[in-house]
Amino acid sequence: MRNGQAFLNRNAQRIVDEMIENADRLGITHSRGSLGEHLIDAGAKQPGGIEAGLRIVEICMGGLGTVSTQLDRSAGRWPLGITVRSSRPVLACLASQYAGWNLSHDKYFAMGSGPVRTLARVEPLFEEIAYEEPNARSSVIVLETAAPPPPEIVEKVSRATGLRAQALTFIYAPTQSLTGAVQIVGRVLEVALHKAHDLKFPLDAIVDGVGYAPLPAPHPDFLQAMGRTNDAIIYGGLVQLFVRGSASDAKALAEQLPSRTSRDYGQPFADIFKKFKGDFYAIDPHLFSPAEVSITAIESGETFRSGGIDNTMLEQSLG
Amino acid sequence: MRNGQAFLNRNAQRIVDEMIENADRLGITHSRGSLGEHLIDAGAKQPGGIEAGLRIVEICMGGLGTVSTQLDRSAGRWPLGITVRSSRPVLACLASQYAGWNLSHDKYFAMGSGPVRTLARVEPLFEEIAYEEPNARSSVIVLETAAPPPPEIVEKVSRATGLRAQALTFIYAPTQSLTGAVQIVGRVLEVALHKAHDLKFPLDAIVDGVGYAPLPAPHPDFLQAMGRTNDAIIYGGLVQLFVRGSASDAKALAEQLPSRTSRDYGQPFADIFKKFKGDFYAIDPHLFSPAEVSITAIESGETFRSGGIDNTMLEQSLG
Amino acid sequence: MRNGQAFLNRNAQRIVDEMIENADRLGITHSRGSLGEHLIDAGAKQPGGIEAGLRIVEICMGGLGTVSTQLDRSAGRWPLGITVRSSRPVLACLASQYAGWNLSHDKYFAMGSGPVRTLARVEPLFEEIAYEEPNARSSVIVLETAAPPPPEIVEKVSRATGLRAQALTFIYAPTQSLTGAVQIVGRVLEVALHKAHDLKFPLDAIVDGVGYAPLPAPHPDFLQAMGRTNDAIIYGGLVQLFVRGSASDAKALAEQLPSRTSRDYGQPFADIFKKFKGDFYAIDPHLFSPAEVSITAIESGETFRSGGIDNTMLEQSLG
Repeated sequence: MRNGQAFLNRNAQRIVDEMIENADRLGITHSRGSLGEHLIDAGAKQPGGIEAGLRIVEICMGGLGTVSTQLDRSAGRWPLGITVRSSRPVLACLASQYAGWNLSHDKYFAMGSGPVRTLARVEPLFEEIAYEEPNARSSVIVLETAAPPPPEIVEKVSRATGLRAQALTFIYAPTQSLTGAVQIVGRVLEVALHKAHDLKFPLDAIVDGVGYAPLPAPHPDFLQAMGRTNDAIIYGGLVQLFVRGSASDAKALAEQLPSRTSRDYGQPFADIFKKFKGDFYAIDPHLFSPAEVSITAIESGETFRSGGIDNTMLEQSLG
Repeated sequence: MRNGQAFLNRNAQRIVDEMIENADRLGITHSRGSLGEHLIDAGAKQPGGIEAGLRIVEICMGGLGTVSTQLDRSAGRWPLGITVRSSRPVLACLASQYAGWNLSHDKYFAMGSGPVRTLARVEPLFEEIAYEEPNARSSVIVLETAAPPPPEIVEKVSRATGLRAQALTFIYAPTQSLTGAVQIVGRVLEVALHKAHDLKFPLDAIVDGVGYAPLPAPHPDFLQAMGRTNDAIIYGGLVQLFVRGSASDAKALAEQLPSRTSRDYGQPFADIFKKFKGDFYAIDPHLFSPAEVSITAIESGETFRSGGIDNTMLEQSLG
Repeated sequence: MRNGQAFLNRNAQRIVDEMIENADRLGITHSRGSLGEHLIDAGAKQPGGIEAGLRIVEICMGGLGTVSTQLDRSAGRWPLGITVRSSRPVLACLASQYAGWNLSHDKYFAMGSGPVRTLARVEPLFEEIAYEEPNARSSVIVLETAAPPPPEIVEKVSRATGLRAQALTFIYAPTQSLTGAVQIVGRVLEVALHKAHDLKFPLDAIVDGVGYAPLPAPHPDFLQAMGRTNDAIIYGGLVQLFVRGSASDAKALAEQLPSRTSRDYGQPFADIFKKFKGDFYAIDPHLFSPAEVSITAIESGETFRSGGIDNTMLEQSLG
């Protein structure tokens, strides 16, 4: 790390504290679980909403991102969109936001997101991310679920992080909620980084980034809700990355990054999911990326563009 | 109320304090009236401006809204617009922002807006809004006027709220000022909620909302200024509401909500006003609504769209 | 000054303090120079980035401006843009942001920007700007350079302002950096004010303003980097000013303000620079202005529009 330490968990805690203070504005509730853990219902029994969703995206990004809504009248049927930006995109999106920590137990299925992952460091991805935060005194875990975690999961997080349950905050909201829709669409930049990593593009060469995706209507059916939020990114997402290194590497990244390079591109995500009988891991992982990308090679001054917003697919999926 | 109390008056006071601290940046002045009340000239003798107007919209919404400008190059002659958003739209817009409290006295005509209305609770609308703030220690009243309120009005507000004059802040800026233009156009979401209520749509079913309208040039003539700010919403406003309940109710709301369903749609507002010889209450109240709406039924996942931006009327009216 | 004092240097110091606290998020470092001056490398040896650039624009404007990014899908190849706004545009842009103080020494070439200029007041422009800040206890200087200032320059600033070196913060980032690109494009409103002043439009008649320009890719070559950032404004900038005074004066300003009124309009800036053999002062100063302007005469309610975004030139220059 350069001098000047990032504190993803501290940043997230500050946003959590502010959410609790403004619980009513955000349509959320704060309570304590059986082990003393902090629980924030941000869209399960509570209504949550766009405002809560935006805060959760900021938490997911460890406070290293800026998140906003915008109304774009040129965006057709879905003028309301989410824009995210980070000048530390690898830390914000991969070390923190990516929902990569399996926190399932029995029938409770959850993938943990947020800065807690930088403390647990149980995922292979952390072999390539040097960031550590040894003195964190609290942490935050974001779960895309309709229920708080069972005690076993709280204990698992406590053990992995060395933090008491009382120092942990679990924020949960299901895929089907408005909060959930915002939280997921707020991953438009993260999926671009994740695919860049899959494509073996060196993480430390990605120095800045911005992304946009339309906000789909929530859907009461889990499969449809998941489908729409994925499709908002896959068929409607727009990302610009600023990268170091050669122009030819940037050009190759631009060509490979958009979702349309994927074998499975061209159907609503829910249909693809059904086609593979719900086996998430049978889906081509390269589908998960923005529709349109610009890769700016800052050492050569060139920008490479590829892909495009797919309005036909958006209209089929987003309703 | 769910647990976690909203504090609209406290929120507004915090924004007022910050405005006073940054008075020069905002082009406003703070002074005290004859009864000790706080007075903020935000566009009468003082210049005010866009920045002051945005703060006043936030105050009008009791701190439960987010307000910003955006430049939309696809918006033709009026790229600069105001965007408002709230995850508590009924409290923000109807309990607080709506200019529904008659604070006129002799020749002083004023309709009070802001969180003070939740303390006075003298309007019939409050029979349907359960929100109360019993321990408020100060309050804020926004007036679309060129002069501070006479002492009789200060006393009226004091009596109705149980607060001493010294605990009240009156912010005023006339319709013709730049501050006023921002403040009024910032009502684009509020008018949608108000008309939804008129249409008997249940208030507690409206869970989130966002609105946009172009910012018209201020006009030195009161009638033209009023006309333009209304037309910015009526012919240029765009609103998306997220609602609970059946898809058919959401569909019916979408069909009835846009301004074009009104008998009086199709002329600049100033001309309509003149046609009715200045009798505001002779104008079809359903004219006061955004040009274009999307209603998203979050329990069914459907979005219903209706209306449309009317560029011809915008060009006739906004100059 | 009206009552309620602006404190441009205090505002800037507050943003500097916040930058230092979040150094890692911003990709910057803070250190001390040989005379005790504070140095912030915001894009020279450090990566900096968009986030750092936005903060520096706010500092340049003495805390009297609002700066944001926006993604505009209607903006063609360069959807990512910078928007700036100020309700005190003359103070923010001319008294503070304009890079008008020559801080060169030997081979070190630098033009100082930021609120320090209001303390030094060595430029003729300050004969027309009454603003003074006699009790400033610290100040901030923004330099578009790849290296910190030599001791002679620190001493020069110290002498001119009466502040010890320890009370001065120098922020530097070269034209070629991403930080630099944001910082320069964030001058879109400032160049409009500067040209208005050249055209003898009275400064105190300009009461509010907003501007937008696309963010070009940084370029490793100084000439290309300078060319692109200038062209983003000259061929892609959009500004709306709100002015007092007669409609005819506003109309005349609108007609003269856009860059296309310049003799040198129509080539990439780098080519123009080469044509004049690098003699900056041989270039028509009226070239430095936004492509498209709206001037709103608030006393008559009229808006005058002129110029237009030049996509052909943007594509030639911005890459």
